Amino acid sequence: MARVVEVDDAADPRLADFRDLARADRRPDRPGGRGLVLAEGTVVVRRLLASPYPPRALLGVARRISDLAGDLRGPHVPADVPAYVTDADTMAHVVGFHLNRGVLASADRAPAPDLPALLATARRVALLEGVNDHENLGALFRNAAALGVDAVLVGPGCADPLYRRSVRVSMGHVLRVPFVACGLAPAVAALRDAGFTLAALTPGGDPAALRAVAGRDRLALLLGAEGPGLSEEALDLADVRVRIPMAGDVDSLNVATAAAVAFHATGGGS
Amino acid sequence: MARVVEVDDAADPRLADFRDLARADRRPDRPGGRGLVLAEGTVVVRRLLASPYPPRALLGVARRISDLAGDLRGPHVPADVPAYVTDADTMAHVVGFHLNRGVLASADRAPAPDLPALLATARRVALLEGVNDHENLGALFRNAAALGVDAVLVGPGCADPLYRRSVRVSMGHVLRVPFVACGLAPAVAALRDAGFTLAALTPGGDPAALRAVAGRDRLALLLGAEGPGLSEEALDLADVRVRIPMAGDVDSLNVATAAAVAFHATGGGS
Repeated sequence: MARVVEVDDAADPRLADFRDLARADRRPDRPGGRGLVLAEGTVVVRRLLASPYPPRALLGVARRISDLAGDLRGPHVPADVPAYVTDADTMAHVVGFHLNRGVLASADRAPAPDLPALLATARRVALLEGVNDHENLGALFRNAAALGVDAVLVGPGCADPLYRRSVRVSMGHVLRVPFVACGLAPAVAALRDAGFTLAALTPGGDPAALRAVAGRDRLALLLGAEGPGLSEEALDLADVRVRIPMAGDVDSLNVATAAAVAFHATGGGS
Repeated sequence: MARVVEVDDAADPRLADFRDLARADRRPDRPGGRGLVLAEGTVVVRRLLASPYPPRALLGVARRISDLAGDLRGPHVPADVPAYVTDADTMAHVVGFHLNRGVLASADRAPAPDLPALLATARRVALLEGVNDHENLGALFRNAAALGVDAVLVGPGCADPLYRRSVRVSMGHVLRVPFVACGLAPAVAALRDAGFTLAALTPGGDPAALRAVAGRDRLALLLGAEGPGLSEEALDLADVRVRIPMAGDVDSLNVATAAAVAFHATGGGS
């Protein structure tokens, strides 16, 4: 159970994890300069507290901290984690802007899962290349969680899934869906070792092939960024090229939306 | 062919359509106070110029107006439509913020299509209820265009698809996919008259029913807002309740994403 601590001074040094978040926002490589994971809002903080990420502190208005009382008693939450309670104005002062979700939590990063161990039990995974937009990446994790994708391999050119905006847009699912950052060749080698079929989603693919891989056990979907799509290298590494049937001359779907359609189309359909 | 007109004064009254857009942004019911349609960026302006919406004027930097030269010669573009060319700073002054897309177009609203006439030739349509977020609504139109949905019935509680942010997020597809704003009961009556099956997408629906309606001619998908979902009234009007299979305890997909999955799942799969 975390300790609830009242604070009324925005300059309190114990609130350092939450200071000037808009500034840290501009440095996705190292949020706050210290690489912390930050969760915003009751739903996402709840997921953080149930995740493998070691919580450091919470900051929130009384009502939100009280909403989270049950979660703060959870088995993953060490007794010495402070939950700082303050008013909305003091919170805005600390954070640097008005935060209408009313509660934040910070956590340390957790060690990445071991890729072979992860793939040993996964049925479907996504391998991403060049998904460099934090919102698209977050939305993709949300869709992976909703549609039963077991792990995400975050390949070259991708944004950091633990960046604050990704965490928020994912609704906290980047904290639940296991992911590993990896190069393309090592990812593909590990997938092959684990017996996965590699299907690249690309406008040059075959819609019939998408149906053909549906329900297959051990399927990896390769997804590239909106616009450029997958590199030739990635396309060449795939076993099959699949496509979502599109109408007329329409530009492609947003990458997270295309991922959702492909996740659904290749699921068991239970 | 539009007339290209150089302007260098941000106060030029001829630029009234494009003035203080951030302020108009707060008034979705009447953009600019005059209900104009506004398109931003080359891709969306191009779609506007090829749409049934009568163009009024363009404002852009020289390079963007030049990119659009071919489109400005299009058959839908009256000869007296002015394309105002200026520099990025003057443009920012007029608009009220820096616009990195470099070109804008304004158009008048077009009369809504006749609903029975629209439904007479449509194969698949979406009927929306309570989709009050402009970005979700725009994304939904983009997905409808990409996945071959022929029309959108914009039911009660929805935002205005022609609001600037919806137009932008839709990539201009709100200007291409025909839509009609309508009440629930008249929409359902018109759909029944036209021989449509009404399938409501809801967490209480049946995944098997989603597969069962796939490929059906004359299918209307009823979609509600993220969170509340469809009203009891809308659910009761549907012939069948369908569901996208979801993993575990995950909260529902974003409404535009759920729509994309349902549009794909019910398409002919060509």
